Amino acid sequence: MPSALKQRSRERPTHELVDLGLRTGYASLMPGRRFITRTRVRYAETDATGIVYYANYFIYFELGRIEMFRQLSLPYDRHLPIVETTCRYHAPACFDDELEIQSTVEELRRCGFRIGSRVFRLSPEGEPLLLVEGHTSMVVVGQDDRPIELPEAFRIAFDG
Amino acid sequence: MPSALKQRSRERPTHELVDLGLRTGYASLMPGRRFITRTRVRYAETDATGIVYYANYFIYFELGRIEMFRQLSLPYDRHLPIVETTCRYHAPACFDDELEIQSTVEELRRCGFRIGSRVFRLSPEGEPLLLVEGHTSMVVVGQDDRPIELPEAFRIAFDG
Amino acid sequence: MPSALKQRSRERPTHELVDLGLRTGYASLMPGRRFITRTRVRYAETDATGIVYYANYFIYFELGRIEMFRQLSLPYDRHLPIVETTCRYHAPACFDDELEIQSTVEELRRCGFRIGSRVFRLSPEGEPLLLVEGHTSMVVVGQDDRPIELPEAFRIAFDG
Amino acid sequence: MPSALKQRSRERPTHELVDLGLRTGYASLMPGRRFITRTRVRYAETDATGIVYYANYFIYFELGRIEMFRQLSLPYDRHLPIVETTCRYHAPACFDDELEIQSTVEELRRCGFRIGSRVFRLSPEGEPLLLVEGHTSMVVVGQDDRPIELPEAFRIAFDG
Repeated sequence: MPSALKQRSRERPTHELVDLGLRTGYASLMPGRRFITRTRVRYAETDATGIVYYANYFIYFELGRIEMFRQLSLPYDRHLPIVETTCRYHAPACFDDELEIQSTVEELRRCGFRIGSRVFRLSPEGEPLLLVEGHTSMVVVGQDDRPIELPEAFRIAFDG
Repeated sequence: MPSALKQRSRERPTHELVDLGLRTGYASLMPGRRFITRTRVRYAETDATGIVYYANYFIYFELGRIEMFRQLSLPYDRHLPIVETTCRYHAPACFDDELEIQSTVEELRRCGFRIGSRVFRLSPEGEPLLLVEGHTSMVVVGQDDRPIELPEAFRIAFDG
Repeated sequence: MPSALKQRSRERPTHELVDLGLRTGYASLMPGRRFITRTRVRYAETDATGIVYYANYFIYFELGRIEMFRQLSLPYDRHLPIVETTCRYHAPACFDDELEIQSTVEELRRCGFRIGSRVFRLSPEGEPLLLVEGHTSMVVVGQDDRPIELPEAFRIAFDG
Repeated sequence: MPSALKQRSRERPTHELVDLGLRTGYASLMPGRRFITRTRVRYAETDATGIVYYANYFIYFELGRIEMFRQLSLPYDRHLPIVETTCRYHAPACFDDELEIQSTVEELRRCGFRIGSRVFRLSPEGEPLLLVEGHTSMVVVGQDDRPIELPEAFRIAFDG
């Protein structure tokens, strides 16, 4: 049990958005920009085994997607249902760990797209250690909840 | 860390509704029936201190309220916003503990009511140990989200 | 918004364990028994799009695994870390829906195994509609958190 | 359903710690500094009524407490069990709302203390609207989980 909280400099927000503008996304079919979001592990996100509960990484994945969409001025709402998601677990995270979520567009499809996510733990020196990686496939649906062709706004934003 | 799951008899469901028909509710301003719901602690509900995360008892409270309302044929929806809630913590619960949630109507008000909740841990022999107790105040609102006078259906069901 | 809770017979617990004793598990590499657990959707598990939040199906998957392990008298603890999980989403679930979780052993491996999960929504008549399906790969680790060969107890229980 | 995410300036982190150094804490028995933390509402924190689920404000309260303790160089761990908590709800929050959590020490006791919490929604212009307020009573326990006298470090930090 950690008896002291990790300190951080006042200048370093824990939940920020950084657009690295890189075009070297991981494992991407489409080379793309990585979008970065940071957060800290909450007690509510851990479980009695002492580490982050496995389902909660999907919450982190979504934090990353939301900040990516905000940055790209794309909507993020009920017209983007998730049709598939996966996660591979490499190392655990604990309460108060500082995490970095990297998101990238991996694939554009006729009616949707696939977002790749990686979550890293940052050491006190800011060095990243890969904890988990996964992806999420989403489709775009219309008012009747049926898939529609990927709107041009998405195609442009993701290709940018 | 428990290395084995607790067994239970097949005849004993973990999430049941039992209307004891008692009129000896706890700390109640209005003597009332107690409604009983059972559940088991999930890993997702514990945290890294090894016990149920404090906010999750409010989820148990709601499980109890919902089964009470089902039993009384009352609706449970967005027209019943919560205006206050409290919880006092006496003893912790761990993963896979079998819990019993007791709910009772404590007070009727002009536009709402207060529900009392107690959560017990059941020993393998079924003996209850009080873990937490609290209450939740709700109001009834109309289509415009403004409080309305407590509908007769509630008054009758709760007074029954 | 549902204005009335769904009724159920008092004889039908919402969270039960039924061992169908079938040997016709779905998509299984190893034909195996299906284990069945039931639960109801909580408000806390839905989100503002009106349906169950996508990450919460992994909590349902675990409910199913835990009841399977209980039935097989196997431990379920920190010595069984999850290394991969996936979920495909076919149809949504809403507050108070009655769900049936089917779990089956899909594959035995040298140091672990893969559990398949399917979640169905039960109609008032008890007819199942497939909502999501996925799987979870777990390994067995020793006191030093390193993978060990699958203990005989697991092999016997899963092969049973 | 919001079809567009709210924009924010790149300079304004969403989860920051600001020590206002004020001595005008709200409703406080002990005038004290307010500590401020910001976060954004996640989809996972909302429910099917369209707003933040009532239990999740206790997660926000803890976010505030943790940042307060970090700022004061106090530990935050299993030796600080919660013995009581309350919340009064004034107005709802929705997905993607920017929240400000204000925390203050309200009372020092022989073996513990009471922290007050207020959560505000920030308008796009940064104007705060009070959503909920509550408090949390914690005690300090030793290795045997029994209450001990409030350590001098807490007394000094809180009185500072």
